[in-house]
Amino acid sequence: MAEQTDGFRVPDSMRAWVLGDPHELVFTEKPVPAPGHAEVLVRIDAIAVCATDLEVIAHGPPALIEGGLPFNKNFIPGHEYMGTIVRLGPDVDEFAIGERVAVEIHAGCGRCKRCRAGMYTACHNYGMNYGDRDKGHRANGYTTDGGFAEYAVNNVNTLVRVPDGVDDAEATLIVTAGTAVYGLDVLGGLIAGESLVVTGGGPIGLMAINVAKALGAAPIVLSDIEDNRLEIGRRLGADIALNPRAVNVVERVREISGGPGCDYVMECSGAPSALSDAMSMVSRGGRVCLAAFASQPVTFDAARLVMENIYLFGIRGEGRSAVRRAAALLGQGRIAPSLLHTHTFPLDEVPTAIRYAREKIDGAIKVVVGIREA
Amino acid sequence: MAEQTDGFRVPDSMRAWVLGDPHELVFTEKPVPAPGHAEVLVRIDAIAVCATDLEVIAHGPPALIEGGLPFNKNFIPGHEYMGTIVRLGPDVDEFAIGERVAVEIHAGCGRCKRCRAGMYTACHNYGMNYGDRDKGHRANGYTTDGGFAEYAVNNVNTLVRVPDGVDDAEATLIVTAGTAVYGLDVLGGLIAGESLVVTGGGPIGLMAINVAKALGAAPIVLSDIEDNRLEIGRRLGADIALNPRAVNVVERVREISGGPGCDYVMECSGAPSALSDAMSMVSRGGRVCLAAFASQPVTFDAARLVMENIYLFGIRGEGRSAVRRAAALLGQGRIAPSLLHTHTFPLDEVPTAIRYAREKIDGAIKVVVGIREA
Amino acid sequence: MAEQTDGFRVPDSMRAWVLGDPHELVFTEKPVPAPGHAEVLVRIDAIAVCATDLEVIAHGPPALIEGGLPFNKNFIPGHEYMGTIVRLGPDVDEFAIGERVAVEIHAGCGRCKRCRAGMYTACHNYGMNYGDRDKGHRANGYTTDGGFAEYAVNNVNTLVRVPDGVDDAEATLIVTAGTAVYGLDVLGGLIAGESLVVTGGGPIGLMAINVAKALGAAPIVLSDIEDNRLEIGRRLGADIALNPRAVNVVERVREISGGPGCDYVMECSGAPSALSDAMSMVSRGGRVCLAAFASQPVTFDAARLVMENIYLFGIRGEGRSAVRRAAALLGQGRIAPSLLHTHTFPLDEVPTAIRYAREKIDGAIKVVVGIREA
Amino acid sequence: MAEQTDGFRVPDSMRAWVLGDPHELVFTEKPVPAPGHAEVLVRIDAIAVCATDLEVIAHGPPALIEGGLPFNKNFIPGHEYMGTIVRLGPDVDEFAIGERVAVEIHAGCGRCKRCRAGMYTACHNYGMNYGDRDKGHRANGYTTDGGFAEYAVNNVNTLVRVPDGVDDAEATLIVTAGTAVYGLDVLGGLIAGESLVVTGGGPIGLMAINVAKALGAAPIVLSDIEDNRLEIGRRLGADIALNPRAVNVVERVREISGGPGCDYVMECSGAPSALSDAMSMVSRGGRVCLAAFASQPVTFDAARLVMENIYLFGIRGEGRSAVRRAAALLGQGRIAPSLLHTHTFPLDEVPTAIRYAREKIDGAIKVVVGIREA
Repeated sequence: MAEQTDGFRVPDSMRAWVLGDPHELVFTEKPVPAPGHAEVLVRIDAIAVCATDLEVIAHGPPALIEGGLPFNKNFIPGHEYMGTIVRLGPDVDEFAIGERVAVEIHAGCGRCKRCRAGMYTACHNYGMNYGDRDKGHRANGYTTDGGFAEYAVNNVNTLVRVPDGVDDAEATLIVTAGTAVYGLDVLGGLIAGESLVVTGGGPIGLMAINVAKALGAAPIVLSDIEDNRLEIGRRLGADIALNPRAVNVVERVREISGGPGCDYVMECSGAPSALSDAMSMVSRGGRVCLAAFASQPVTFDAARLVMENIYLFGIRGEGRSAVRRAAALLGQGRIAPSLLHTHTFPLDEVPTAIRYAREKIDGAIKVVVGIREA
Repeated sequence: MAEQTDGFRVPDSMRAWVLGDPHELVFTEKPVPAPGHAEVLVRIDAIAVCATDLEVIAHGPPALIEGGLPFNKNFIPGHEYMGTIVRLGPDVDEFAIGERVAVEIHAGCGRCKRCRAGMYTACHNYGMNYGDRDKGHRANGYTTDGGFAEYAVNNVNTLVRVPDGVDDAEATLIVTAGTAVYGLDVLGGLIAGESLVVTGGGPIGLMAINVAKALGAAPIVLSDIEDNRLEIGRRLGADIALNPRAVNVVERVREISGGPGCDYVMECSGAPSALSDAMSMVSRGGRVCLAAFASQPVTFDAARLVMENIYLFGIRGEGRSAVRRAAALLGQGRIAPSLLHTHTFPLDEVPTAIRYAREKIDGAIKVVVGIREA
Repeated sequence: MAEQTDGFRVPDSMRAWVLGDPHELVFTEKPVPAPGHAEVLVRIDAIAVCATDLEVIAHGPPALIEGGLPFNKNFIPGHEYMGTIVRLGPDVDEFAIGERVAVEIHAGCGRCKRCRAGMYTACHNYGMNYGDRDKGHRANGYTTDGGFAEYAVNNVNTLVRVPDGVDDAEATLIVTAGTAVYGLDVLGGLIAGESLVVTGGGPIGLMAINVAKALGAAPIVLSDIEDNRLEIGRRLGADIALNPRAVNVVERVREISGGPGCDYVMECSGAPSALSDAMSMVSRGGRVCLAAFASQPVTFDAARLVMENIYLFGIRGEGRSAVRRAAALLGQGRIAPSLLHTHTFPLDEVPTAIRYAREKIDGAIKVVVGIREA
Repeated sequence: MAEQTDGFRVPDSMRAWVLGDPHELVFTEKPVPAPGHAEVLVRIDAIAVCATDLEVIAHGPPALIEGGLPFNKNFIPGHEYMGTIVRLGPDVDEFAIGERVAVEIHAGCGRCKRCRAGMYTACHNYGMNYGDRDKGHRANGYTTDGGFAEYAVNNVNTLVRVPDGVDDAEATLIVTAGTAVYGLDVLGGLIAGESLVVTGGGPIGLMAINVAKALGAAPIVLSDIEDNRLEIGRRLGADIALNPRAVNVVERVREISGGPGCDYVMECSGAPSALSDAMSMVSRGGRVCLAAFASQPVTFDAARLVMENIYLFGIRGEGRSAVRRAAALLGQGRIAPSLLHTHTFPLDEVPTAIRYAREKIDGAIKVVVGIREA
């Protein structure tokens, strides 16, 4: 039976896409979950498709893969979602019913060494929320039910208010912008006046361009093999956009720098040669952030890392409150993630949405499932 | 004609080993150089052989190699030296004649972007002291005349007082200890109570063990394929010493950690598999420092770097005043670099000293050329 | 009725000292509490008296003072305690029954901005564990029941294993050492070879001397007006111990430094003039940590702070996992907090113990209530 | 006789304002200086009046004041200047003749402990460029001849290119913007989405508002007692502008924050109560930067600093390459220092310019002496 609170009627069950066999999604009914301590129930209004969703659908949640456990049927994938708070757990007063929120992926356990140091996306209890071992960690759509559904429970730590004037679809991209902010924070934080090369013009790379521009980096160079993405990159703030099929990017970057190379590289392509190229583009004492990775082992010239005193940062997720910062930049009109949004589908067409994202049909960059506004 | 100052008679010319053809050293006479602004003249009392000296002797100074310039005959290699100040340049009052000093390698130009940020070992004007382009950068034994000689000019920035009670041979190892300090500083600085694995028990690896012990890291694990080095590692502070020929080091480290892996890895072996192993030993959110490198490109699982939020630091030289810190630890009796010192030869036997170091004759670890005390 | 687990019999009720009227402690019986999620029950084996306990006994818990709430009768003060784990909350596997642990004060809420950044001692939900507002924050002996009793519930985040060979009384001082570690971490972390002045030789100041020595700071200067504390400071590692009644400390410190002043000052005296003196002792670009404070507003020359580019850090508690680090140093025999331990009393003599601590009777520095071993 | 190079004719002597008796400036002729190693000669095109110029004119250069030396007649004050490079010292190729540059104040000695760590504005050899002790430190208009003249020699480290489209008067304000950048860098660097209160709407405070807005801080609050400055602050980015004569700023800030207070305070007023107010406005775990100071000792509640874990940063000048970053933000049109520029006078009216600045005649904020364009 449904309860009525502050005008939001919450049903007992909801429609949801769950894992079936590998590579299969099944549209079904599941009970609407109840928020516990430090949690709220979010009515999901929109969700974007991320490349890593495809991994989960194909292979099961990562904790299961690593643990060699059986494929987790009945699990709801999807993590780039936003919605409206419709129920509050006990003691929650940080948010109010009716508020629109974007939801980041990771809620750390709060009790491991990394969480205690503020590194909640590197939680040592990742995935420890199966069976008997509930340590409090959550990774939406990875280890706990995600957002290809009508409702989801979320820890208050993962919620960020959607700024006024931002529509549902754009709000799903706040998390992607958050990953870009995290990478740029790790690289330097105050990057105004520093030069940056972003390799790879997918969603994270494009948002890195956009956030870097907002923070004053200059010059900003984007490299990608697709010209339409280079064009969007230019609109988002790239001062120079290079297609490696037409130009030697490493040489060009060194030339632009006047010789020594750039200050920072943010690698978002996952190309096997990307790390090697980064080593050759960044200047002595510079920094490289890896936000994407090849599916195969990567070969590179480690001697350069040592001889050039280069620091290389792998980033997982959106640490250091990066999503909150991304929302602030969006609220001030300084970033424009909606330029990435190319397609929208309703909830019952999730498989189509995923197909568009996977196959980049019709120039798809960010495909959104718009549950309320579609 | 020689000048007499404060009791130190300085001749006009000195004996010195200089580069001849590739792989060749020639014992010759050169003029004693005069210290300029911010410089002193050091009478070299002892110098240790470093593996990178062999590179310079074989291939010429690195700036020449990179620039494709001809082999630099008449250049004096050698950088791990100590001695006594015998002349002061104009305006120098930071040191006095007669003081014993250890000498670090790098004096930054003081005017590039990196130097201005305190990163003097990543100076963008490295090697810019040939021909017409004197930017003020110095790297003893790499780009400016080094220490296989009786005298050398040095920038005051590269000098650290030798603590009382430290003999000449031990003082040559302060620079090596400094590289270890720099690596551990980059990894965490305050490493007390953090777990550390050092891979490779050469001089830098062994000093990393010793410095880490002094700073309270625990547990400290050393891996090396030579049992005598493991034994020295134990004496220098390794809680656990592992020979990868006898034990699976990665598995053992994870076991010691209780599962997640260690906090830090400092890779000092240059083994081609070392980076891969480091990725597997370090815990999520942990840090890896590369202080050695393979001569060939390295293959590793970059996905782990990203998914585990690992930071990887290449270090060049002895940044962040690490040599001064190393000298302080030595002066307090907290590190014992003399355990690395295995052989001593006089100045006219430098080729023999180098052969012992290169071929590890008679268990050689650190071979010292003792000019005054040998 | 008592339950039996792993050999530890836990009664239903326990003896405890609770707040009565202001300035009054009452010895009474209270129910033994049960550990919840992420919590354990600790049988308290020993507890040290801290100066701030006197504040709580006189004025009530700080959250009540600030909120203007009535004096909180029946509250158990005391926070510097250690003991043995006798019960585990659900999901706790980080510790086992029977382990000896030291207990730090603060468990952050895990959900405010500061906790999410790892700053758990600056939790914005401090004190939010009264009445209806349970946000999960705990500060033992300040906002939740403390340690002048036989048992206490603690969050796993606040527990640190007592190293082998450390007795109960010494283990109570690990938290004090943790505050010293936190202060030195904030000042520089890697302080080897840096000069430090500690003003005030109370427990925190003396532990700062001891930890700084362990980490290689040099030279280390202590100033205090009591010669017996200076003597203990010397034994704990002070290179120079100065009594401001006999010598001008500021002048002496500048002299020792050769002119510019010292690198760091850690102020632990709470003397009204201490901040002014710190400004005059620290060198341009140096850092000052305030770990104690005067009860009255303090007057100082703020112009020096600006003109000399000085950073001043207030520290609350033992952030950045400092207690774990302190335990590691103690386990390695590098610090000797037992030198501070002057007196021991049994549980039923807590008022006497407090009187000794407050009035420094018989040279009291750290007074311990030894519940098991006294 | 004048030399001709690249079209710039440089005379042998120049007009300059020099110190006479205290409080007196004398217009005279001086020889045009020649650039040395790492230096260039700048033809000064414009210079702004700063409050600290008045101190130098009244009391002599600071190093003299501290040293108790006699008033330094014939010294040229003034440090907020820009101009055109007309001569290069030996080895200078970082800049070309004809380039327009803004000039920051401090060139560190490059050889003291602080400079080696990148803290060039906290150089320990400040002022060591008199008489026999030339350590290489320069502070334009403080310890070496400044900019109320036609030409000045400058170290390449102090030069920043003026972005295209920025006129001379606006370019003189890049240094002021640099101080704001340095303060915000020290406070957090990545301040997007963090709340900031700036107390004091003088030039540095107003630029702090403007830079903070450019970097995404929100909300930004300005307090000042003059309504016209509040109005300019609003135009530069303050979300809320408060006059303490009309509203209780501390209460209002806590209210805006929803209770805990703001993240950062940048104090730019020098009001005696400002530090106390900052302690009450900033939230637990927050940070305060002092960029101005009262002429008298300041009284504040140091207990709050400790209990609330507040960090307080004094900043001198424009460290961490802040001027270069400020120029980048200006070049991208993200800051608008020209809003501060209220008056312009020619070189022969410097005393009038100074009077306008000192007495805030006609609402003067930044008074510029426009040597070429006035």
